[in-house]
Amino acid sequence: MAIKVGIIGATGYAGETLVEILLSHPSAVITVVQAMLEKARPLGDIFPRFKGKTTLVCKTPYMKEIVGKCDLVFLALPHTVSMKMAPFLIKEGKSVIDLSADYRLRDLGVYAHYYKTKHSDPRNIRAAVYGLPELYRNKIKKSRFIANPGCYPTAAILGLAPLAALSLIESDSIIIDAKSGITGAGRTLNQDLLFGNVNENFKAYKVNVHQHAPEISQELSKLFGRKSNIVFVPHILPLNKGILETIYVRKNARLKRNTADLINLYRKFYKDEPFVRIRDEGVFPQLRDVVDTNFCDIGIKADAKNIIIVAAIDNLLKGASGQAVQNMNIMYNIPEKTALI
Amino acid sequence: MAIKVGIIGATGYAGETLVEILLSHPSAVITVVQAMLEKARPLGDIFPRFKGKTTLVCKTPYMKEIVGKCDLVFLALPHTVSMKMAPFLIKEGKSVIDLSADYRLRDLGVYAHYYKTKHSDPRNIRAAVYGLPELYRNKIKKSRFIANPGCYPTAAILGLAPLAALSLIESDSIIIDAKSGITGAGRTLNQDLLFGNVNENFKAYKVNVHQHAPEISQELSKLFGRKSNIVFVPHILPLNKGILETIYVRKNARLKRNTADLINLYRKFYKDEPFVRIRDEGVFPQLRDVVDTNFCDIGIKADAKNIIIVAAIDNLLKGASGQAVQNMNIMYNIPEKTALI
Amino acid sequence: MAIKVGIIGATGYAGETLVEILLSHPSAVITVVQAMLEKARPLGDIFPRFKGKTTLVCKTPYMKEIVGKCDLVFLALPHTVSMKMAPFLIKEGKSVIDLSADYRLRDLGVYAHYYKTKHSDPRNIRAAVYGLPELYRNKIKKSRFIANPGCYPTAAILGLAPLAALSLIESDSIIIDAKSGITGAGRTLNQDLLFGNVNENFKAYKVNVHQHAPEISQELSKLFGRKSNIVFVPHILPLNKGILETIYVRKNARLKRNTADLINLYRKFYKDEPFVRIRDEGVFPQLRDVVDTNFCDIGIKADAKNIIIVAAIDNLLKGASGQAVQNMNIMYNIPEKTALI
Amino acid sequence: MAIKVGIIGATGYAGETLVEILLSHPSAVITVVQAMLEKARPLGDIFPRFKGKTTLVCKTPYMKEIVGKCDLVFLALPHTVSMKMAPFLIKEGKSVIDLSADYRLRDLGVYAHYYKTKHSDPRNIRAAVYGLPELYRNKIKKSRFIANPGCYPTAAILGLAPLAALSLIESDSIIIDAKSGITGAGRTLNQDLLFGNVNENFKAYKVNVHQHAPEISQELSKLFGRKSNIVFVPHILPLNKGILETIYVRKNARLKRNTADLINLYRKFYKDEPFVRIRDEGVFPQLRDVVDTNFCDIGIKADAKNIIIVAAIDNLLKGASGQAVQNMNIMYNIPEKTALI
Repeated sequence: MAIKVGIIGATGYAGETLVEILLSHPSAVITVVQAMLEKARPLGDIFPRFKGKTTLVCKTPYMKEIVGKCDLVFLALPHTVSMKMAPFLIKEGKSVIDLSADYRLRDLGVYAHYYKTKHSDPRNIRAAVYGLPELYRNKIKKSRFIANPGCYPTAAILGLAPLAALSLIESDSIIIDAKSGITGAGRTLNQDLLFGNVNENFKAYKVNVHQHAPEISQELSKLFGRKSNIVFVPHILPLNKGILETIYVRKNARLKRNTADLINLYRKFYKDEPFVRIRDEGVFPQLRDVVDTNFCDIGIKADAKNIIIVAAIDNLLKGASGQAVQNMNIMYNIPEKTALI
Repeated sequence: MAIKVGIIGATGYAGETLVEILLSHPSAVITVVQAMLEKARPLGDIFPRFKGKTTLVCKTPYMKEIVGKCDLVFLALPHTVSMKMAPFLIKEGKSVIDLSADYRLRDLGVYAHYYKTKHSDPRNIRAAVYGLPELYRNKIKKSRFIANPGCYPTAAILGLAPLAALSLIESDSIIIDAKSGITGAGRTLNQDLLFGNVNENFKAYKVNVHQHAPEISQELSKLFGRKSNIVFVPHILPLNKGILETIYVRKNARLKRNTADLINLYRKFYKDEPFVRIRDEGVFPQLRDVVDTNFCDIGIKADAKNIIIVAAIDNLLKGASGQAVQNMNIMYNIPEKTALI
Repeated sequence: MAIKVGIIGATGYAGETLVEILLSHPSAVITVVQAMLEKARPLGDIFPRFKGKTTLVCKTPYMKEIVGKCDLVFLALPHTVSMKMAPFLIKEGKSVIDLSADYRLRDLGVYAHYYKTKHSDPRNIRAAVYGLPELYRNKIKKSRFIANPGCYPTAAILGLAPLAALSLIESDSIIIDAKSGITGAGRTLNQDLLFGNVNENFKAYKVNVHQHAPEISQELSKLFGRKSNIVFVPHILPLNKGILETIYVRKNARLKRNTADLINLYRKFYKDEPFVRIRDEGVFPQLRDVVDTNFCDIGIKADAKNIIIVAAIDNLLKGASGQAVQNMNIMYNIPEKTALI
Repeated sequence: MAIKVGIIGATGYAGETLVEILLSHPSAVITVVQAMLEKARPLGDIFPRFKGKTTLVCKTPYMKEIVGKCDLVFLALPHTVSMKMAPFLIKEGKSVIDLSADYRLRDLGVYAHYYKTKHSDPRNIRAAVYGLPELYRNKIKKSRFIANPGCYPTAAILGLAPLAALSLIESDSIIIDAKSGITGAGRTLNQDLLFGNVNENFKAYKVNVHQHAPEISQELSKLFGRKSNIVFVPHILPLNKGILETIYVRKNARLKRNTADLINLYRKFYKDEPFVRIRDEGVFPQLRDVVDTNFCDIGIKADAKNIIIVAAIDNLLKGASGQAVQNMNIMYNIPEKTALI
């Protein structure tokens, strides 16, 4: 029997993408879609491309409807809004996959610093599993509450995990130069997101102060087994979808491995992963290789001192909604690639 | 001695472009720039690309400053705002070039219908000269108040003027399929102008109800000597600058001229014009031929019944600020191409 | 049992899209992919985004392999190449869906004029069914040889069919102003297709001499029951995928219907069609409504004399490979939407 | 009296831009334009946007014409072609500004390695002055042969010069993550430059093996006074013009200065430079601030260990033709900003 799924925040990019994936999922059925609207509207009116594919009506948030009709709820909400809703749903016994940042950071002080508010639900932070299947698949399998990773962190952590887990690099040498398409910034009405300000333009933003930096640090530190500081500079690309990160690290003094060795090491590390692809020597992923897929593609190059890693994902799929569905598949023992390949 | 020039509305696209042109104008000096700001700011802060090129400070609107320091004022203001300011400036003896639509339409009812408000300064409408130099150069020369044409009308009227003036086509057969870059819509904060909604997208809008349609009709009717109705459908292109219009008309029964004849006719009509270029047979203008120039390029093709005209301009130059400076040059007996070529 | 499918020309945009659709088709299996390559290469090497999704190897054209392993062959080949291959495959009893223009035009002279070569297989032209399901579903069902429609013709014919079939408009008044994304031009190495020449540019091309004009005329003439001449001007948009056509027609003298009437008429005409969507009054399709879907979306507006129709499709789906799979589904009695919604 | 100027290679992006700048230069007149064409063609035919602005005819290369009509020659030629022409022009007493890489690298072995050919004119390498005015203005003033810097090196060197000259950073810690618009790759007919492969895509290329890396190293080493190795990864942006480089360096142990200190230091270093602008603390340049200008804009941020520098230029102006004209102005004692601001 199909999993009954609800989506809160269906009108944002992540929510829209969840609808799209789940409409073609053979083992899930969307029973409820909600969003901050003035009044209920058919999804096909909000997104004309859904017309003729679904007759779902998007309603204003109403918890009782969710509780009555859903097994699993995706929260595709802005940061700080999720933590108002998640506790109730968890208490009602619902499975919850939260796409916001609210339950990703373990350190409440760090959360307060980066998201400018005190966390209102610290108890459930411990309960949440960080939903990166490549690192935490077994925990995800047993969990009913997933903190779905951020888009930048997904590419960064997958790009660095083999080196960090084996401590092959200096943990404080990590420089992540990240470039993202505009959907990463959401549908906010903001001068910086106007076509006239993005098209034929390129810029760095939140230089070394982006809220995804501590999320990356937290996860890398766990892998290293010691505190890892990173330099993280995100940039805005004049295109819709995709994140490409060029990552620079210094080898440990004892690390003699060359590019080919490292490629082998990465392939071994990810050998059972359906959504990580390691490029051959001399080849690097491009955004168009991964856009509209749930893959994370990785290219690697080393010289005597440094390693350069290029990691690319679709920010709305592996970086958000695709990964969320991957997590659902794992939680419900559905073949992991279902609806994603 | 240089003309002392003021710009009201310097932060919009047209105002910004006026600043750029006038900074390199040998016979004009910008003495005042004003815009709806919370407080005065250097232009180089608002537009970092002007840093090091000018130390002008953009102030909030203040008529007294304008009156004291300017010979000529460019109004780069939204429709319905210009008509609040123009009467005062005219009364004070200033030359005024208004880039809004407020003084273009002769019919007050039409204005009220399309701009959703009653005109508050009908007296000055008669005084205003429609600033299309190719048709009204002599009037512009003697005028001190110019209604600078709209962007779509400039391309449409220049594309059709030779045929209309000679009544070679059926006056009610005119179909104008217009495509514009996004700067045509201004800097408004509007969902429709977000990068995510414009990039990789294309659409028609205000289908046959755009406010530039009556402006085109008015001018064509004058040329024809009888009422000319048009079909006008504008579209939004995913690019910054440029308008290209593909215009379809039916020949008069008696018109036997072929493409080559019509090209000759156009070249004769525009033979003294510095900013109109007629393409050879089989060649049509592209946007990049005219973007960042003040030219209007025109290509023509005829078969037995129909004539197809392609007209292209930069919407911010020949379609707005370039034409405004061209008008200033004419008014002040400065060589017409100054600062424009 | 799954249909065994071959694709010749798998490296072009249409072939790549066919692979993508068919990989997720539950009733078809791709057994052979071929293309003009120097040597066989895995599809995942040619298109890295297919890595991990398929292990198919793309080989150089070899008819014997096709004959041995396929029930149905998609020809995604350049014009004039298909007609060298189709006769053999047909003779071998294979079902063939040809995405080129080789079997679309009934008039050999017209073909020779537009494609600059004499047709080498006139016999099979009569056998071919024009694969527009909305008009020829019953014929497609019984056919084993489909001439898949062109991209521009698909949008134009669907946009005009209700008016033409009912003769509500003047058959020689049709003006089609078409705008296409760059994939419509294929992967050819051509100055005109360089990023530097397309980005921030827009242009008309093949003004009223495009090879799709006679295809549109042919089909409209059948619907009208008399010769229909059209004016057809295609343009290149600076984006990847999608065609939007703005179509202008003159009503018949007797036609009094307003916009609402015409929308009803269109909805009735297409009431059983899974892939045609008619917009409400005052609403027009945008490219992003149809890109990555197999839908053709249509908006309509009428005044006393004219009707304006806006029709939009994804040129690679409803305009090519999606429609080809739709035809396959019909031919094999598979639910028509399979793998397409 | 005006300088008589010739341009060889006028049909490439750099050549086209030179024409544009020089047409408005009050102290220079273009007397000869040449390019590899099948036959002579008016510049206005090759670039329709020049029609009506110049009647210059672009001819096939012919040295005698150059010698007879020019004082100064700009070589806007591919690498390895310049070194075939420069010696002759120098010998004839012409001033030469070479925009290719042929005379930038002092080390012949490095040249041979990166440009895949033995240098045919080593003698003139020593004679050439590296044309970066901010470092070598006095030498340029006295020189008659300028090796105009590469686009990536211009931004990188200007972004690092103050730190390198004062040895404030570890000379082997420099990581340059560079992003360039497509015009940086020239007008070559190449699959990688097709719109379909660039639009909505982003990629790294020549990862740490780009030919501009040794040029940057050479100049930084001179400033440091010791060998400086860099990590240099260029990327292709889906836009026409502009380079933005995000540069990461490690402070020297003794360097305690914070962001504000460093900004002051940069401002002092560049205090007399007309084309370098240092941003305030917390502000970083965007491409649109510099595109269509000759400025190099720089933003700086430091933490305890690292300094992040963002440098942006227009690759065709400060990165090529603008800088070439700046060099001409210096050589001829013309005010340096002439025709550039």
